[in-house]
Amino acid sequence: MIERVVLIGAGRVGYHLGHRVHAAGLPVEQVYSRRLNNARELALALDCVAVQDISKITPLSACIYILAVSDDAIDNIARQLAYLDHPGRFFVHTSGATPVEVLSRHFQHSGVLYPLQTFSRERKVSFQEVPICIHTARPTDLPVLEEFSQQLSDKVYRVDDDQRATLHVAAVFANNFVNHLYTIAHELLEQKGLSFELLRPLIAETSAKVEKHPPAHMQTGPALRDDQRTIMRHLRYLSKSPEYQDIYRLLTRSITKRSADQ
Amino acid sequence: MIERVVLIGAGRVGYHLGHRVHAAGLPVEQVYSRRLNNARELALALDCVAVQDISKITPLSACIYILAVSDDAIDNIARQLAYLDHPGRFFVHTSGATPVEVLSRHFQHSGVLYPLQTFSRERKVSFQEVPICIHTARPTDLPVLEEFSQQLSDKVYRVDDDQRATLHVAAVFANNFVNHLYTIAHELLEQKGLSFELLRPLIAETSAKVEKHPPAHMQTGPALRDDQRTIMRHLRYLSKSPEYQDIYRLLTRSITKRSADQ
Repeated sequence: MIERVVLIGAGRVGYHLGHRVHAAGLPVEQVYSRRLNNARELALALDCVAVQDISKITPLSACIYILAVSDDAIDNIARQLAYLDHPGRFFVHTSGATPVEVLSRHFQHSGVLYPLQTFSRERKVSFQEVPICIHTARPTDLPVLEEFSQQLSDKVYRVDDDQRATLHVAAVFANNFVNHLYTIAHELLEQKGLSFELLRPLIAETSAKVEKHPPAHMQTGPALRDDQRTIMRHLRYLSKSPEYQDIYRLLTRSITKRSADQ
Repeated sequence: MIERVVLIGAGRVGYHLGHRVHAAGLPVEQVYSRRLNNARELALALDCVAVQDISKITPLSACIYILAVSDDAIDNIARQLAYLDHPGRFFVHTSGATPVEVLSRHFQHSGVLYPLQTFSRERKVSFQEVPICIHTARPTDLPVLEEFSQQLSDKVYRVDDDQRATLHVAAVFANNFVNHLYTIAHELLEQKGLSFELLRPLIAETSAKVEKHPPAHMQTGPALRDDQRTIMRHLRYLSKSPEYQDIYRLLTRSITKRSADQ
């Protein structure tokens, strides 16, 4: 049974996760960050102690140590925490891209708690609706992590390392790349003195459509219709930006190919 | 003053536009479609007459004839309607990609009424929030079309042919291409037996973020961080699909370049 939480990392994931743990009525005992101000600010909100020195992290029983740090830092921090290993302690990271092995080398009970969402400090997230993908090095540990995670979210999924790697790649397409296309659209509009407001309802509807329908069924536009006249006109329009032309060409080809294959 | 509407085309745009005109209390007098069933179905809903023979379209005064047909068909239909030209009649098309000139050749009063949204029959759209971009061949006609459009939407923008062409390209990025990235993400998940449900909160949040913030400020992910280890891992993961690898590589390069430029 997990009765308390130590939070390693006070970045965006640590911030939102910490607040959710607190709101769920589970005590967060300590917040560690190498930036003391970050640790202090979050510790204040969560009513606990801030730590900047990693060797000062308290050994506790019935405790989960959550490493909400950047992918690159997990390995190093895990090494430094290895002395805390104990049958009453659970160690998880929150990374989509990192196998559990990085932790299971050092700890008897280890796993992954990957919240599949994009977090910003400026925005509140309804954490209860955030899918949490869990995995443990030992199968017998899974129910423990599952019970804990279900206190944080209504959507807890068992997802192994291999599946989580897939999710992470898919999330790059559906989030990072999508946002970059918004950025390009924004830039094209700005060049002509047009407001991004004009596109917002379209963006909202495009994403709302796939709430209910498979995205492939929702495809529209010149590429799907193989409307060469419009495609050529758009490519000419983009002629001053070979980079955007390449993106236009490649995505158009991919849409056309997919529709021809079906 | 525009007092009545004749709708040429009963496709997705005609359908939603017709319903909005009707709901706004303006009479739709006729619906034309070369597919009689489509015309009949929409005419029934709008309480008017269906026409399949284009030469049977009634000459009316204080009337706007809205050509809500595919880009390729506008020119041909405009020719066939040329005999209707009259000082009391307004002719507009609804295309983002077509200059007004296709109509102004034939009609004294012509323009464009471009609703910037993606329409599907399955989905209700709150038309009052759909941006309508208007343009007229004669500047003196603009207030007439503006007054009419403001009865349909709260967001009417004056957007000339050149700006509208920009909007159309930008909409392809923000809608068609974004939806294709959703499709790719869906496919990657399916290959591993994972549900698309897992990504839906991420998709919703990604689009909700740009309601308030410029998309460039919302960018996150391995490309922005120039996290070569993760990028290489993702590219290896996609090695069975050179097409998706190309898309990944190109968009990653574009994000990295943009962040380096700033």
